[in-house]
Amino acid sequence: MHDLGYARLDTDRLARTGDAEVVYGAGKTPSQVVELLRTLHETHPGHAVLATRLSPEAQEAVSAALPDAVVDSVGRTAVLGEPPALRGTVAVVSAGTSDAPVAAEAATTAGVFGAGVELITDVGVSGLHRVMGVRERLDAADCLIVVAGMEGALPSVVGGLVGVPLVAVPTSVGYGASFGGVAALLAMLNSCAPGVTVVNIDNGFGAGVFAARVARRAAPAEVKTQ
Amino acid sequence: MHDLGYARLDTDRLARTGDAEVVYGAGKTPSQVVELLRTLHETHPGHAVLATRLSPEAQEAVSAALPDAVVDSVGRTAVLGEPPALRGTVAVVSAGTSDAPVAAEAATTAGVFGAGVELITDVGVSGLHRVMGVRERLDAADCLIVVAGMEGALPSVVGGLVGVPLVAVPTSVGYGASFGGVAALLAMLNSCAPGVTVVNIDNGFGAGVFAARVARRAAPAEVKTQ
Amino acid sequence: MHDLGYARLDTDRLARTGDAEVVYGAGKTPSQVVELLRTLHETHPGHAVLATRLSPEAQEAVSAALPDAVVDSVGRTAVLGEPPALRGTVAVVSAGTSDAPVAAEAATTAGVFGAGVELITDVGVSGLHRVMGVRERLDAADCLIVVAGMEGALPSVVGGLVGVPLVAVPTSVGYGASFGGVAALLAMLNSCAPGVTVVNIDNGFGAGVFAARVARRAAPAEVKTQ
Amino acid sequence: MHDLGYARLDTDRLARTGDAEVVYGAGKTPSQVVELLRTLHETHPGHAVLATRLSPEAQEAVSAALPDAVVDSVGRTAVLGEPPALRGTVAVVSAGTSDAPVAAEAATTAGVFGAGVELITDVGVSGLHRVMGVRERLDAADCLIVVAGMEGALPSVVGGLVGVPLVAVPTSVGYGASFGGVAALLAMLNSCAPGVTVVNIDNGFGAGVFAARVARRAAPAEVKTQ
Amino acid sequence: MHDLGYARLDTDRLARTGDAEVVYGAGKTPSQVVELLRTLHETHPGHAVLATRLSPEAQEAVSAALPDAVVDSVGRTAVLGEPPALRGTVAVVSAGTSDAPVAAEAATTAGVFGAGVELITDVGVSGLHRVMGVRERLDAADCLIVVAGMEGALPSVVGGLVGVPLVAVPTSVGYGASFGGVAALLAMLNSCAPGVTVVNIDNGFGAGVFAARVARRAAPAEVKTQ
Amino acid sequence: MHDLGYARLDTDRLARTGDAEVVYGAGKTPSQVVELLRTLHETHPGHAVLATRLSPEAQEAVSAALPDAVVDSVGRTAVLGEPPALRGTVAVVSAGTSDAPVAAEAATTAGVFGAGVELITDVGVSGLHRVMGVRERLDAADCLIVVAGMEGALPSVVGGLVGVPLVAVPTSVGYGASFGGVAALLAMLNSCAPGVTVVNIDNGFGAGVFAARVARRAAPAEVKTQ
Amino acid sequence: MHDLGYARLDTDRLARTGDAEVVYGAGKTPSQVVELLRTLHETHPGHAVLATRLSPEAQEAVSAALPDAVVDSVGRTAVLGEPPALRGTVAVVSAGTSDAPVAAEAATTAGVFGAGVELITDVGVSGLHRVMGVRERLDAADCLIVVAGMEGALPSVVGGLVGVPLVAVPTSVGYGASFGGVAALLAMLNSCAPGVTVVNIDNGFGAGVFAARVARRAAPAEVKTQ
Amino acid sequence: MHDLGYARLDTDRLARTGDAEVVYGAGKTPSQVVELLRTLHETHPGHAVLATRLSPEAQEAVSAALPDAVVDSVGRTAVLGEPPALRGTVAVVSAGTSDAPVAAEAATTAGVFGAGVELITDVGVSGLHRVMGVRERLDAADCLIVVAGMEGALPSVVGGLVGVPLVAVPTSVGYGASFGGVAALLAMLNSCAPGVTVVNIDNGFGAGVFAARVARRAAPAEVKTQ
Ligand SMILES: Nc1ncnc2c1ncn2[C@@H]1O[C@H](COP(=O)(O)O)[C@@H](O)[C@H]1O
Ligand SMILES: Nc1ncnc2c1ncn2[C@@H]1O[C@H](COP(=O)(O)O)[C@@H](O)[C@H]1O
Ligand SMILES: Nc1ncnc2c1ncn2[C@@H]1O[C@H](COP(=O)(O)O)[C@@H](O)[C@H]1O
Ligand SMILES: Nc1ncnc2c1ncn2[C@@H]1O[C@H](COP(=O)(O)O)[C@@H](O)[C@H]1O
Ligand SMILES: [Mg+2]
Ligand SMILES: [Mg+2]
Ligand SMILES: [Mg+2]
Ligand SMILES: [Mg+2]
Ligand SMILES: [Mg+2]
Ligand SMILES: [Mg+2]
Ligand SMILES: [Mg+2]
Ligand SMILES: [Mg+2]
Repeated sequence: MHDLGYARLDTDRLARTGDAEVVYGAGKTPSQVVELLRTLHETHPGHAVLATRLSPEAQEAVSAALPDAVVDSVGRTAVLGEPPALRGTVAVVSAGTSDAPVAAEAATTAGVFGAGVELITDVGVSGLHRVMGVRERLDAADCLIVVAGMEGALPSVVGGLVGVPLVAVPTSVGYGASFGGVAALLAMLNSCAPGVTVVNIDNGFGAGVFAARVARRAAPAEVKTQ
Repeated sequence: MHDLGYARLDTDRLARTGDAEVVYGAGKTPSQVVELLRTLHETHPGHAVLATRLSPEAQEAVSAALPDAVVDSVGRTAVLGEPPALRGTVAVVSAGTSDAPVAAEAATTAGVFGAGVELITDVGVSGLHRVMGVRERLDAADCLIVVAGMEGALPSVVGGLVGVPLVAVPTSVGYGASFGGVAALLAMLNSCAPGVTVVNIDNGFGAGVFAARVARRAAPAEVKTQ
Repeated sequence: MHDLGYARLDTDRLARTGDAEVVYGAGKTPSQVVELLRTLHETHPGHAVLATRLSPEAQEAVSAALPDAVVDSVGRTAVLGEPPALRGTVAVVSAGTSDAPVAAEAATTAGVFGAGVELITDVGVSGLHRVMGVRERLDAADCLIVVAGMEGALPSVVGGLVGVPLVAVPTSVGYGASFGGVAALLAMLNSCAPGVTVVNIDNGFGAGVFAARVARRAAPAEVKTQ
Repeated sequence: MHDLGYARLDTDRLARTGDAEVVYGAGKTPSQVVELLRTLHETHPGHAVLATRLSPEAQEAVSAALPDAVVDSVGRTAVLGEPPALRGTVAVVSAGTSDAPVAAEAATTAGVFGAGVELITDVGVSGLHRVMGVRERLDAADCLIVVAGMEGALPSVVGGLVGVPLVAVPTSVGYGASFGGVAALLAMLNSCAPGVTVVNIDNGFGAGVFAARVARRAAPAEVKTQ
Repeated sequence: MHDLGYARLDTDRLARTGDAEVVYGAGKTPSQVVELLRTLHETHPGHAVLATRLSPEAQEAVSAALPDAVVDSVGRTAVLGEPPALRGTVAVVSAGTSDAPVAAEAATTAGVFGAGVELITDVGVSGLHRVMGVRERLDAADCLIVVAGMEGALPSVVGGLVGVPLVAVPTSVGYGASFGGVAALLAMLNSCAPGVTVVNIDNGFGAGVFAARVARRAAPAEVKTQ
Repeated sequence: MHDLGYARLDTDRLARTGDAEVVYGAGKTPSQVVELLRTLHETHPGHAVLATRLSPEAQEAVSAALPDAVVDSVGRTAVLGEPPALRGTVAVVSAGTSDAPVAAEAATTAGVFGAGVELITDVGVSGLHRVMGVRERLDAADCLIVVAGMEGALPSVVGGLVGVPLVAVPTSVGYGASFGGVAALLAMLNSCAPGVTVVNIDNGFGAGVFAARVARRAAPAEVKTQ
Repeated sequence: MHDLGYARLDTDRLARTGDAEVVYGAGKTPSQVVELLRTLHETHPGHAVLATRLSPEAQEAVSAALPDAVVDSVGRTAVLGEPPALRGTVAVVSAGTSDAPVAAEAATTAGVFGAGVELITDVGVSGLHRVMGVRERLDAADCLIVVAGMEGALPSVVGGLVGVPLVAVPTSVGYGASFGGVAALLAMLNSCAPGVTVVNIDNGFGAGVFAARVARRAAPAEVKTQ
Repeated sequence: MHDLGYARLDTDRLARTGDAEVVYGAGKTPSQVVELLRTLHETHPGHAVLATRLSPEAQEAVSAALPDAVVDSVGRTAVLGEPPALRGTVAVVSAGTSDAPVAAEAATTAGVFGAGVELITDVGVSGLHRVMGVRERLDAADCLIVVAGMEGALPSVVGGLVGVPLVAVPTSVGYGASFGGVAALLAMLNSCAPGVTVVNIDNGFGAGVFAARVARRAAPAEVKTQ
């Protein structure tokens, strides 16, 4: 355990579960984020390490202090260190434009956790031809992450088209009776398509970790980095 | 107003709104249902009158006492009197087997309120080819009633395929986090397809009244009874 | 499909459903709103196109960049292009002063989607003479949109007066146990007047689309533009 | 305090608050109800005493054991002892047929607590002429109890017609999104008519106590028993 | 009806219900509040008129433009015009320091609506000697308004001490599982003391109107202004 | 661990935490309850062992098969084995008659877990003289368990009177907006009296375990068995 | 599609997703269940087919009519046909005795969908040595299903011990503030262990389908049937 | 009672319950906090007095005006006056970094209320070795305060390890379906470990008061100040 006073890094997690600790940026100062990311990187020099939920200020601080870090302002993430050899493919599918940040967080996480990633955006159910048009790409993936807000119907449609393991991510996109993502969450938990599992509202990170673990197991051999 | 002691029939409603009063069977005894239906029929001899939410006992009592009544044990309704000249078409579309009672209540109500009715069942979103296969029939209707429980995704899919006015009916089918139909209700209220309106959970009656009114206006000329 | 990077315009929707795609302004930058509106207009030069939920900044940007656009600061909408030939009449009825923005969004939408619109404001149920005084105008409409916050009682009262199809819009007006519009939403879903359907809280847009479709079907012949 | 082992009667309440203790029948055996009612009667021989929420079995046991008791099977109450000299008038107004039990509980309670009672039933808002027709009777009362289920709109309408203090009672009548009376409760708490107060769902008893206290103060002189 | 464009004043309300229309300041600009208050005053020159929920800016604007208005920055109200002859007494009782604004709104409203007012603050149930010490003053009132946040227990305690009609006002004071006043609201609706009625969270205004009406009826003769 | 097929008894718990495992009777057959209780008794011959939430059938089966067991039909518990030497005193205080089963479960549990118990019933807040009259007994206890349904106000009143550690137990007693005990639970969580902790609705068992542990620590020396 | 009147079997699903349709027994008569299971078996003679949520009557009817079916009264399932060649291993881990039915449904489903299954019961978090003692077996699985009611903490503990993909199943076991499984569901959605996904309350079936798909991909080669 | 106009200090509380009144800083101005703290200190010169929930501005004002006060910017508290002779030990255990403010508030409160305090941070359940490593320290305490957000699992794990009285504090740490701490609150109320009690979300203060009272009773003799 690495104790920084305001936080203790679980540096043993890599040995225990096969994946390194991650910096959760919400409620941390920019300089704390920088120090945590640098420390993780020094502890696991051969791995890519990840920080999520970074404020614009934290993103700037990381870019300034750690020029090797790859910062994504849409998904609000930073990655530091060599990308792993990727195994298997996770397809991240999103319903609408506003779901982009959650989809980006999921995609970046899945990559850092060792899976190849394919991003398929804006294929919401109100225009079915769009999702029908990518059916083959969906079928070819080892695990699907399906991101949707509002009525959260996309996982049911995708889950009826292909038999690939599917993780649904409800987003807080919507207003009124969407109740900050609760409508989408409930829809996904009640999906009539068998084999749909669900994570917390806006939790692209959790879906990315899970899907990467499934994809890695499905494809022990390395795939080409994207 | 016709006062029966335990209830007052709003016999003026036909003049006021163009549609007769209806017997709501929940919480009424079989003999009350029979008396109310008979009284409505006598007041409006030239119209079909309707009773909904009938218990098995009330259905039997109506069949015994009013042999001309048409009793439907699936939709739990009874209809007494000449069917009206039908105008326009309402298509009642349902997602799963368990939604049948609500779809039947909607269909019977739309017929009694003067619209032609087409029933399209078991076209849930987990098997999209089914709803795609009936697209033309959907497009030809004057108003759609889309009935679904669980995640309530069918109205969004149908609403993206055609531009026909669409009334969504959530059902209480499901368990756990479906919360007795709340999941489907929220999904429908948050539909990303424009032009979807919603009624109460399991309220096939309300959807039927509304859709018949829309269909009648859309097709002033009479259509063949089905 | 028209791909702008941050969004894909569903330019095929007009052919599929008879109505063009709409710009949902929430969460978009002013310049994105301008570009999307201009692109939609170029794709459908013979139609009016609509943007909703515009921030004051987006409204200014649209006014500056697209001088032909009609911007409404109450309903937070912008319309660009020739108004359609209007068919049928939608009456938009609102309960209180604070419901004005939602009523305006509904009215503008119904007009862009091709219906004549009549606006009847401030006829809440705590002063019944007001709604009684407009009964004839309500009866003459092809579809009603009834907008109310707080206890959401107006649709039940209107729905008992006339037999016109009625779409109820709950608003988030109120405090405490109004729960951001939930009290009004529940009241409308439980209306004892038959034939009331409901849309999401503050969803004037959805009600406008639906009502225009009903009104257009009810009056195939053109009416005078208002 | 009178201790019966399974319950202690608050026999001091009459002195403290001016009104005697009441037997709440829910969860009590028929013989407990009989013994409690008899004991209350013996303690306060000059008053009428009340038992509420009586099961059919408890109603029969009271009728058999206490032939002087007046048992009401609709409101599920029993009253024993001389009715008080009535002061002032409470008007109990109900919206629909199914609200009858709650209205009856309120009316019986108001009478036992010393007010004259007028019952006005089945004047729901979907047929406004009914409530308009009784406006004068409403205006003449000292306190109003307005009972309604489903969307609970009646108190707002009545509260806009007259300036009499108004207690609203939501009932559990309805289904689906009425959530056992929550929809009506929320509507009443958010009434746009000023001067509306609310009691618990189905709590005709509490409304009756309150309204009788208001009416008694308003009319110190005795009125004719009804 | 007086139409100001952005609002219609219900100037007929005084004739209909005995009490004048009130300005609800939430969501209105300072100059709108000033204009509405001035108009109401001109329409009802012999009455005191009231504005509630005034922002600090609106309070300043009223003070500047209408020097005769009495502005209360705690209760966020403004009163313009001659106070009425007061009849009866309303006691406003509050549990804690933070409940002061709601208690002040209730007290000012009751006064404008014609009742004498007595304010009893900071007598929460965690120090019972405080409420016991004012028992006689409670008993002497014609109507009680009991204001409390957090667990909302004070109305039950007061309602067990005296038989005076009691209106409970839950406040949004608290955090966590107080859910913005819902905990207090539910407690008050479930009070085991008979004769407690409830208004919306933070609705001092509604309680004031109701209590004044009760007090005025209880004491037809005039009392000395406080 | 003792494996009975349908259940594994955590026989190590006594060593780990100082208290033996308990049989939770809900959802178990009468013969399973008997076997589990007998096995626990054989494993811990020197201790009293407890079974809770017993159906009437399970209570009878225990009485028949284990004549030494003490069965309480009010609290639905059974105790087998020598009562422990009691240390400290837990006072169990309840608000109303209907709270008796939960109070009994708490009292029996506290005794089995080694504390002396004092039961004080029916001292609800609507008659304050009752709780005031037992203040000294409350003050003398080492830990208080306060049981109340409906508005759950009793813990706040008791917590303001004495400084003894206080565990509040909400019960499901009530109807309508009590929501099965939620109203009381929220009230207790928001108590303005400092030092109140809360357990689950109807969880007399949990409160009894906790309070006994507190009382035992407070009074290391043995007290006389009650 | 195979149409039986009361239901249409999606016989195309095997081709589309790789897994056959399943009979959902809730709300179906015993003879419907028998006919559906037989029809599925005839359509897919080389596969095992599954029926879930069978009432005791339906279980008996299946046993009588289809002697080759394997009926499990704990998990309420029936399986007909040759078990598939199993690939990979799913470990089903449950917290308490009462979670057994959901764990059994998950285990049977995973087997029918082609994965080897290992059942690890009664390792709830209140006795940590139990779950620590099976850590190696957890680590060896290809996918974990973790079943828990009440506070739903087991998935967080397991997810921190091993890096295997983990599907959490909340159960409705509990009372009071467990709200029929909602407490466990929320806990699982908020797990601080990364890589936990969740299904609906009591949905052992959905978890079994998902986990089998993950396990089959992870182990393309066949494993020995258990 | 000490009346400061805007607040009345319950200066009698020390005599009544053994503990002095506390300043609740939320919603108070910096100068009010300073005055209240100074007044409390003057009233109870021999005790430490406490203020909680201080804004940064109030913290600065206290530091400036009362140089003897100990201000903690993490727990947002200020303490003025001689620390009491400490008796017994409270161990404050927290799950994650973000729970630090609530843990600090609990620790400071327990100290001011007279218990020795031991702080054990960042031992969340996703890395069990951490909590296992402090088992002896947990066992040695007289009362435990266990602070956790998100899924709130830590109290169940700790409660299964030791038999010490345990107060659980849910925090509002989390997002989406954590609903501001509700998920953790429900988990703790449903803990399967016996003897867990719960306080309001983020209520470190209440837990500190309670735990100190338990610890003081457990250890009548003085311990060394920390
Ligand atoms: N976006 C995220 N959502 C949920 N959990 C996260 C997220 N990012 C990181 N985490 C988890 O938070 C932990 C770090 O939390 P902390 O110690 O507070 O920085 C990591 O080990 C992850 O398991
Ligand atoms: N299934 C139904 N759901 C909702 N409302 C209904 C239903 N059936 C009838 N109604 C309404 O209930 C009214 C009759 O109620 P009642 O007077 O209680 O029999 C009718 O006028 C309809 O508006
Ligand atoms: N229908 C009712 N609803 C609510 N409270 C009632 C009702 N009937 C009686 N009560 C109250 O219940 C108290 C008696 O309760 P108990 O001691 O349990 O019989 C009376 O003093 C009344 O205040
Ligand atoms: N952080 C806190 N959370 C809950 N209650 C508190 C807190 N701090 C102080 N209190 C309580 O609030 C009371 C003072 O409230 P007030 O009179 O509004 O300052 C004290 O007597 C405490 O019981
Ligand atoms: Mg789009
Ligand atoms: Mg099917
Ligand atoms: Mg107005
Ligand atoms: Mg009726
Ligand atoms: Mg105070
Ligand atoms: Mg009692
Ligand atoms: Mg066990
Ligand atoms: Mg950490």
